[in-house]
Amino acid sequence: MENYKHIYNIKSPEYLKNKSIKELEEIASEIREFIIDKVSITGGHLSSNLGVVEATIAMHYVFNSPIDKLIFDVGHQSYVHKILTGRAFMFDQLRTMNGVSGFPKYSESPHDVYEVGHSSTSISAMCGFVEERKTNKSIGEVVALIGDGSLQNGLSLAALNYLGTKKNQKGIIIINDNEMSISKNVGGMAQWFNKLRIKKSFKLVRSLTTVSFRNAIKSIVYRNVNMFNQLGFTYIGPIDGHNLKDLISYMDYAKKSSSSIVLHIKTVKGKGYKFAEEDNIGLFHGVSPFDKTTGEFLKKLPNNQMSFSKAVGGSLPKFMDKYPNLKVITPAMIYGMGLTHVFEKYPERTLDVGISEENACVMAGVMARCGSIPIVATYSTFFQRSYDQINHDICRSNEHVIFLFDHAGLVSGDGDTHQGIFDIAMLSSLPNITIASPANLQEFEEVLEIAIHHQGPFVIRYPKCVIDINETYNTTFLNKWKIVRPIREKNILCYGPVVDQFKKILPPGIGLINSLFIKPFDEEIIKMLNNKKLFIYEDVIKENSLSTKIIEYAYLNKLNIEIHSVGVDDFGCVGTLEELHQKYHLSLEEFINNIK
Amino acid sequence: MENYKHIYNIKSPEYLKNKSIKELEEIASEIREFIIDKVSITGGHLSSNLGVVEATIAMHYVFNSPIDKLIFDVGHQSYVHKILTGRAFMFDQLRTMNGVSGFPKYSESPHDVYEVGHSSTSISAMCGFVEERKTNKSIGEVVALIGDGSLQNGLSLAALNYLGTKKNQKGIIIINDNEMSISKNVGGMAQWFNKLRIKKSFKLVRSLTTVSFRNAIKSIVYRNVNMFNQLGFTYIGPIDGHNLKDLISYMDYAKKSSSSIVLHIKTVKGKGYKFAEEDNIGLFHGVSPFDKTTGEFLKKLPNNQMSFSKAVGGSLPKFMDKYPNLKVITPAMIYGMGLTHVFEKYPERTLDVGISEENACVMAGVMARCGSIPIVATYSTFFQRSYDQINHDICRSNEHVIFLFDHAGLVSGDGDTHQGIFDIAMLSSLPNITIASPANLQEFEEVLEIAIHHQGPFVIRYPKCVIDINETYNTTFLNKWKIVRPIREKNILCYGPVVDQFKKILPPGIGLINSLFIKPFDEEIIKMLNNKKLFIYEDVIKENSLSTKIIEYAYLNKLNIEIHSVGVDDFGCVGTLEELHQKYHLSLEEFINNIK
Repeated sequence: MENYKHIYNIKSPEYLKNKSIKELEEIASEIREFIIDKVSITGGHLSSNLGVVEATIAMHYVFNSPIDKLIFDVGHQSYVHKILTGRAFMFDQLRTMNGVSGFPKYSESPHDVYEVGHSSTSISAMCGFVEERKTNKSIGEVVALIGDGSLQNGLSLAALNYLGTKKNQKGIIIINDNEMSISKNVGGMAQWFNKLRIKKSFKLVRSLTTVSFRNAIKSIVYRNVNMFNQLGFTYIGPIDGHNLKDLISYMDYAKKSSSSIVLHIKTVKGKGYKFAEEDNIGLFHGVSPFDKTTGEFLKKLPNNQMSFSKAVGGSLPKFMDKYPNLKVITPAMIYGMGLTHVFEKYPERTLDVGISEENACVMAGVMARCGSIPIVATYSTFFQRSYDQINHDICRSNEHVIFLFDHAGLVSGDGDTHQGIFDIAMLSSLPNITIASPANLQEFEEVLEIAIHHQGPFVIRYPKCVIDINETYNTTFLNKWKIVRPIREKNILCYGPVVDQFKKILPPGIGLINSLFIKPFDEEIIKMLNNKKLFIYEDVIKENSLSTKIIEYAYLNKLNIEIHSVGVDDFGCVGTLEELHQKYHLSLEEFINNIK
Repeated sequence: MENYKHIYNIKSPEYLKNKSIKELEEIASEIREFIIDKVSITGGHLSSNLGVVEATIAMHYVFNSPIDKLIFDVGHQSYVHKILTGRAFMFDQLRTMNGVSGFPKYSESPHDVYEVGHSSTSISAMCGFVEERKTNKSIGEVVALIGDGSLQNGLSLAALNYLGTKKNQKGIIIINDNEMSISKNVGGMAQWFNKLRIKKSFKLVRSLTTVSFRNAIKSIVYRNVNMFNQLGFTYIGPIDGHNLKDLISYMDYAKKSSSSIVLHIKTVKGKGYKFAEEDNIGLFHGVSPFDKTTGEFLKKLPNNQMSFSKAVGGSLPKFMDKYPNLKVITPAMIYGMGLTHVFEKYPERTLDVGISEENACVMAGVMARCGSIPIVATYSTFFQRSYDQINHDICRSNEHVIFLFDHAGLVSGDGDTHQGIFDIAMLSSLPNITIASPANLQEFEEVLEIAIHHQGPFVIRYPKCVIDINETYNTTFLNKWKIVRPIREKNILCYGPVVDQFKKILPPGIGLINSLFIKPFDEEIIKMLNNKKLFIYEDVIKENSLSTKIIEYAYLNKLNIEIHSVGVDDFGCVGTLEELHQKYHLSLEEFINNIK
């Protein structure tokens, strides 16, 4: 065990209760060191956790978890909470199948009262808890910690608007204002927050003595007339989010108050780790292993390899140059999608709309109708938020919008809340849509070229993985599959980067089909498979996957194809890609061994 | 032709341009009379259109459509706009396949610049237009008319937050504040609007002379400090939404302004028709034909018949009495779902969260985890808004939430934006979910009883239709289908109220299966169909429907069933149910005739 005085002795939040401010500060300092140390080895969410060390300690000091419900919006800032609830010993295997999850998990601890992974549900969850508290006496205070980026999402705002009217249903909302989502925040509320920063209240409050505290707060509360008041909340802020004494005082005040309160705390994302503090594009938001002392990432890819995200980001400028009506819209995923330099190079043709996939899609539909070709880019799992906008506002009127679904298929680390396994099932029943899953960068570029010339909604999906960037491919045509190895008695059918992987390890005598178009699919090649065996490899939810379509087509066309398929049959779980592949019988070796 | 001076002479908004206020008032009066007259015969949206007569006239008087983009949020208040753009002659066939649609339609007029049917996309669409205006010189002013209920939806708020920061991208938002969505509004913003009503500015403005107008506006603008200012908008209001002179003055001011403006107008929903004005539950929101003079609805159902919605609403109280942990949550659909008396009788166990399907679902997930059994109730098409919440926040952690999907399947009148045809495709790939489609009230009650005892998410879907309420049925078991007529060589498989309809007209010698459970389905009965013919009737999108599942099961289990199926293969369209059935080969007679 490392040389920590507190970390491994914390079995529950009780540990904090009798500590002095000085001791709490000592614990904060240890937690910070511990997180930097562990995450530098395992990878994980760094900056967001470093930013809420004091806030989380104060929450557990003042409130009585799990009777009091501590809700962590998005959940990627819950590491401190996990350490304070006795889970430090699990951090050596952070984000793996047998270690601690990077997000709150019901199965890990009774202190994880709300499981989450997608943004901006915390106030809505709070509405549920306070509603239940009317009859369920086991529910105490309800406290949500939410970032200023998450707060500006529509679901947060709608829940805020709802809760504001419930005069006898108290909740405590702590806004963790660090001016960042993953990257820099946008939006009117963000601008208003920025103005608040230069006001006096912040300094004033820090100098208060405990005796005059309540009166001083009253004067602050009444001096502020703002949108939170108008929605029905008491608003206090900004508060120094790294000053434990202030945080405890204000949370204590909020606890004793009888009505709903917004505490606006100001924090520094990445606090205490120089490289993370200086980062304002998101480098240290979710990290792979790095050198603690230099801040350099350890995993260096060979020159011919690159993450699919970065390869796509690097490829976009030549299309932007070639097609002046191409525009890029992302809901707060500039860095995550490898788009930093695209946004820098084309400031007039790129838009970050903040965490609002819905707004991104409605805007894109209109912009397409006005003659642009908008590319909407985010992760597959986050596009789930905009199902209705893709359906009602884009596919219904057949708008020419291109979607980049990154992190499609199984993803390592984040767990069940982030698996990109539902996109095909979610989208494939929509009229007008085209869905493609290219195998590598060259195929991506061929597909994007087709998408630009195709009049209608077009989804290009690709996984979280590393690809060889000098693979070459034969040319792609709309809806046409590729026969990579000639059709034989036994054949593998798959799409995405596994095509290249299969190509490398495939024993002779087995055919290989790259089914890069999932909708519409290539009927001619399916017909060629008549009286043969077909082994379909997909790392998405099995129901309504491509294999479902192929089976339906074969049945209705009376084809005699012996079809075997693999896929995912639940929401997935936390794990490395290897662990996930093993669990779902998706390791390529096992798949090939089962070809009989 | 009727005895109108203006209505049928209006070929385009040009008609208004040289008119005096008095003449415009005359036109307003005629339009009101015309709408009441036509809608009393055809049915349609009444109250919302009567409320915006003057506002729409002022919009077309001040702005230059279609260069200036007039966006109607939700779109059910676009009748006045349609009349003013030369479509009065189409109102005799309102909401039928050959008449005028009840919503904006690209195909009907170049003045319909944004097609819509779901709520709260207008500000987001505005963001798209103003973004495009940077390079597209054919786009003039962008104006959105949005109700106070729609404004409080998350997508509206997120778009407002986004647009507020775009200093050089001007939009004009007209809030049509009538205190109502379909029924009475909820939310902090609604309460704040209520407070605004009693302020002086409203009266003050009405007495202004044109000379002092701009200065007076300035003083109003600066006196108001509110959430709109803080988000970056100029705010003016409230304004009398039925005073054409005021409306024109303010819209003119907004047009000349260089920055984004919110005009808050106060209107009376149903203005000018006594029965609609007095209605505060939504009776006159969307109506069937009625007697103009008495306000009574003409369609009287026989005693043994009832709409499925009303039957469900009428049935819920006995379940509420029997199961004290049952709660009902609806996103602003109390009246539409037939729940008025349920909300009156159980005020502590019913929640209207406003137009926020997302918030409803997240809250329901939490409430289920706390021990309640929440029933979330809205139309099938509106549940599309909460796909991610149903997936990530309910199914993933297997919460015991019951969903009532009303208006499932094809619906008459509203058109492609409201078809309930995607629910099965959208949901059936989600692990843990159960989907059932009962045939009638008794079967609904049997299924609800099962849902209450089943631990996990459970969808009960039923169409917009009239059912016999004294049908009886044999008892239902989880996931088990019913053989209504013994299995023969040829068999019909269907679910929902068509089961009873087929039973009545089915020729002898044909089997009939009630496949009331769509997921999971009854494998035993499918096996019994081996070596037989199966004719599957579904009025949902074909891809990923129940027939897809049955085909997949049959193929993988090497069953020899000759399967024929009908369904919908696009987004649907406007029409009566008969028209829609004809278009998609879904008339029961045609279906039976095709059984060979």
